[in-house]
Amino acid sequence: MSDDKQMPERLSRETIFESDYLNLHIDRVRQPNGFIIERFHYVEYPHPAVGVVAENGEGKVVLCRVPRYTSMTCGWSVPAGGVESGEDVLEAARREVWEETGFESFDHRLVYTYYPQQGSSNKLFHVVFCRVGERTGSFDPDEISEVGWFSRNEVEGIIELGEMNDGLGLTALLLWLRMANSPTPKSPCPKTTTTSAADPS
Amino acid sequence: MSDDKQMPERLSRETIFESDYLNLHIDRVRQPNGFIIERFHYVEYPHPAVGVVAENGEGKVVLCRVPRYTSMTCGWSVPAGGVESGEDVLEAARREVWEETGFESFDHRLVYTYYPQQGSSNKLFHVVFCRVGERTGSFDPDEISEVGWFSRNEVEGIIELGEMNDGLGLTALLLWLRMANSPTPKSPCPKTTTTSAADPS
Repeated sequence: MSDDKQMPERLSRETIFESDYLNLHIDRVRQPNGFIIERFHYVEYPHPAVGVVAENGEGKVVLCRVPRYTSMTCGWSVPAGGVESGEDVLEAARREVWEETGFESFDHRLVYTYYPQQGSSNKLFHVVFCRVGERTGSFDPDEISEVGWFSRNEVEGIIELGEMNDGLGLTALLLWLRMANSPTPKSPCPKTTTTSAADPS
Repeated sequence: MSDDKQMPERLSRETIFESDYLNLHIDRVRQPNGFIIERFHYVEYPHPAVGVVAENGEGKVVLCRVPRYTSMTCGWSVPAGGVESGEDVLEAARREVWEETGFESFDHRLVYTYYPQQGSSNKLFHVVFCRVGERTGSFDPDEISEVGWFSRNEVEGIIELGEMNDGLGLTALLLWLRMANSPTPKSPCPKTTTTSAADPS
């Protein structure tokens, strides 16, 4: 999947904007077949993000309702957020679950990594599954409006109605339903090293 | 899902960049609870995109290998691309399948709509399912390096290996597998009006 000879090549770059959050470049790019893209709008994000399917002993997952400025909607999604500089993905997953729900979590497993908007951006999303422990905090009201628990059937229902409009939540929960519905448990990304539980302190 | 009283509100805007492809704004935003986000980096896309799961009579789907400048990978994904100004989503789906594979298609159904990167962008992705007809063209070598047919088991295998790294393809195919694996066929978005076949000319 990564034959360098068949990859696009940057010929020149005009940087429009730079910040800790994102950079915007207009690149001149040569495709593998020689075709030139004169103005490739490249939104470069320095940090990946992680979305977490956190399940309790009854097989329910914890979801957050997030008011979204970009879409002016407020729907349910998984706890999610940016992986900070130098932070391990699984530690970021534990931190985000705690910040957005108040629950400790453990047994974090990286199950998938993908590019949500590869046509214009290098943003990388990690999907992590974990188990939920005790509640030792609350959710951040500056980001989250509500926290709730959902059974498999309830998650199916939200998707069925087209109401899971957040891409990371939709993809993470489709992966979770797929594994849950499989007669033999599936490990969608066996090449990925899975680690033991993060320290829930 | 859209109680206006609970939505974020823009207080001011600094526009960094504007083009036909995307705009970049730094907005000052008030969250529903009163919290102020001083610098919200908002990547605004004027056009949504569509990804298409196009199935033949044997239950195989047509996928494209796309060299990706943003990730420097070249993996399989569904035919996909931007919906043009004034273009119907289902017509865009038919056009993209033809441009990227050379196949006519029909019986297009909009099955899901979501925001792939709602934390910073209003980009909207539509997932369309359809049936494949005759081949009347070829694929565009400036965008696509290869076209191939994949059975359900082969699609499962690509996902299993973590090799479907393109978000739109991953989400569209997970929706397709979910419906295919369901004992009773599922319509994930019953509120959406489905239309008859687009004109395959």
